[in-house]
Amino acid sequence: MIKRRSKKKALITGIAGFAGSYLAELLLKKGYRVYGFLAPREKIDNIKHLKNNLKLDRFDILKADKVSNFIKKSKPDYIFHLAALSSVGLSFTNEKSTYDVNFIGTYNILIAIAGLKTPPKKIVFVSSPDIYGRFKPTAKKLDETQPFNPVSPYAVSKIAAEYLCLYYYLHHKLPIVRVRPFNHTGPRQNTDFAVPSFCRQIAEIENGLKKPKMSVGDLSNKRDLSDVRDIVRGYYFLARKGEPGEVYHLCSGHAVSLRSILNKLRRMAGVSINVSEDINRFRKSDIPVLKGDYSRAAKTVGWFPEYKLEQTLQDTLNYWRKKITK
Amino acid sequence: MIKRRSKKKALITGIAGFAGSYLAELLLKKGYRVYGFLAPREKIDNIKHLKNNLKLDRFDILKADKVSNFIKKSKPDYIFHLAALSSVGLSFTNEKSTYDVNFIGTYNILIAIAGLKTPPKKIVFVSSPDIYGRFKPTAKKLDETQPFNPVSPYAVSKIAAEYLCLYYYLHHKLPIVRVRPFNHTGPRQNTDFAVPSFCRQIAEIENGLKKPKMSVGDLSNKRDLSDVRDIVRGYYFLARKGEPGEVYHLCSGHAVSLRSILNKLRRMAGVSINVSEDINRFRKSDIPVLKGDYSRAAKTVGWFPEYKLEQTLQDTLNYWRKKITK
Repeated sequence: MIKRRSKKKALITGIAGFAGSYLAELLLKKGYRVYGFLAPREKIDNIKHLKNNLKLDRFDILKADKVSNFIKKSKPDYIFHLAALSSVGLSFTNEKSTYDVNFIGTYNILIAIAGLKTPPKKIVFVSSPDIYGRFKPTAKKLDETQPFNPVSPYAVSKIAAEYLCLYYYLHHKLPIVRVRPFNHTGPRQNTDFAVPSFCRQIAEIENGLKKPKMSVGDLSNKRDLSDVRDIVRGYYFLARKGEPGEVYHLCSGHAVSLRSILNKLRRMAGVSINVSEDINRFRKSDIPVLKGDYSRAAKTVGWFPEYKLEQTLQDTLNYWRKKITK
Repeated sequence: MIKRRSKKKALITGIAGFAGSYLAELLLKKGYRVYGFLAPREKIDNIKHLKNNLKLDRFDILKADKVSNFIKKSKPDYIFHLAALSSVGLSFTNEKSTYDVNFIGTYNILIAIAGLKTPPKKIVFVSSPDIYGRFKPTAKKLDETQPFNPVSPYAVSKIAAEYLCLYYYLHHKLPIVRVRPFNHTGPRQNTDFAVPSFCRQIAEIENGLKKPKMSVGDLSNKRDLSDVRDIVRGYYFLARKGEPGEVYHLCSGHAVSLRSILNKLRRMAGVSINVSEDINRFRKSDIPVLKGDYSRAAKTVGWFPEYKLEQTLQDTLNYWRKKITK
């Protein structure tokens, strides 16, 4: 009799989020049994198409006993901790909740893992380059040694959670890898972000649902923008081969202005669109250019971005074209 | 008619703690009106002798509304935030409370200050060199740029609170100075710490309350030990002249072994004492030598330690001699 090797198991917190849903798809494709939990009133739209293949539960990450029970029950080989209040803007008004969910929530996850008889092979904690905050602009790419100067409660919460991860690595020997993904976009991202907001408006204009005019914010800032599918592939690579205790950037290595992105999208549009800049529209940024260095991830786990920006924009535009006409 | 200039006001959180009580004494001496609050079941022994000159209240630092009301009512010119669960050892078993009191408690203080019409002239946040955690031992003195490698929940909580302070400085423009005092001792410190524990035992032996034998832990580690009265003078100097947004070490700049301290105390004792080392007695430390660099504080605010170690030890021994015979 041949003993069938059981499937490897992965747990994704924040599985119904934008990146979480892509990570779930990737892991299912790779043959993993995928576990995840949703926040009490969280929408499931992003993972509706995967739902029957996922082991889902629904509870508040601040309920330590529920978190612990779910982790004990699922006994994951890999844990991807993506769950967070991830809006920098909202963190100013929801400051206490941001600290609770992003820091104490992470504590609930880690203390539960530390209590397992068999620890997971790897834990991937998703942080953010927002923790660098204000810095002197240079032409150089930012690497992982940049000092932290948080200018939002969101950034504080991620710094606190990163050091918590470091403690659980140093003291409890948990094999944690921290990752700081730069901006990423793609289909399913909500229209609070620039690219989907542009795409949705273009799709609406193409369909006669909106006049061929767009009012936009400051388009001059340059950002390092990746495809969400590259980013989640990076999470997977880091889970398999990342060095415990280490932290990695995932990014494109290029800086692109919102103006250039919008112009690319306008060329993809089937109609001509008039654009006017409204400086009150987006929150002001101190940082004119943000460009990351992913050489550590490239060297350690062989990760490189694969999607061209044009592909990402085309896919996102097509997603909104379909969504608008549904 | 001459208008009498009203007294400057200072608020000390953790006022009934070891350092808090000395800071209260110093500020009263300097002519300040001194405010403070106690935790619900906190003992008042350390400040009993000052009680009538202090404006005290009692509430939980996690009750944001009480914190806010007290700060609004007292309208302090200077705030010294010392309140914390300060035991590294206990932080392993009281992990969640350590994060709550030391991080969320600090948040309650800062958000209340940010809401004041007239902000204080300076806020001094007391952190700890424990945040450096594990590091490669060198002969060099540690300065403020040493990286953080937390090996206790206490260290994580202080790192989180430090970055919170930095955010409130960068974004809300609060004039916060962070300070990392190295080990300090003196009269009133409780016997969970080595120096008061030695002094108490010697006083008991001198008074025939104990056999002339002491069982002690590993005496080989060298620590940077200051007098509590030097440390609180440093807090005061930093409140007056520290640079907002900056962080400062306060320390002696020397490393002294527990063995050398115990031998000094034995020479001060009126009796001969037999010492045996019991390696199970104190928690093991990864760090054989800890020595701080206070040159930034010296340069910026003109602070230098004044107490000689012998004076500190003599005063602490005399304190316990009095206490034992009472």
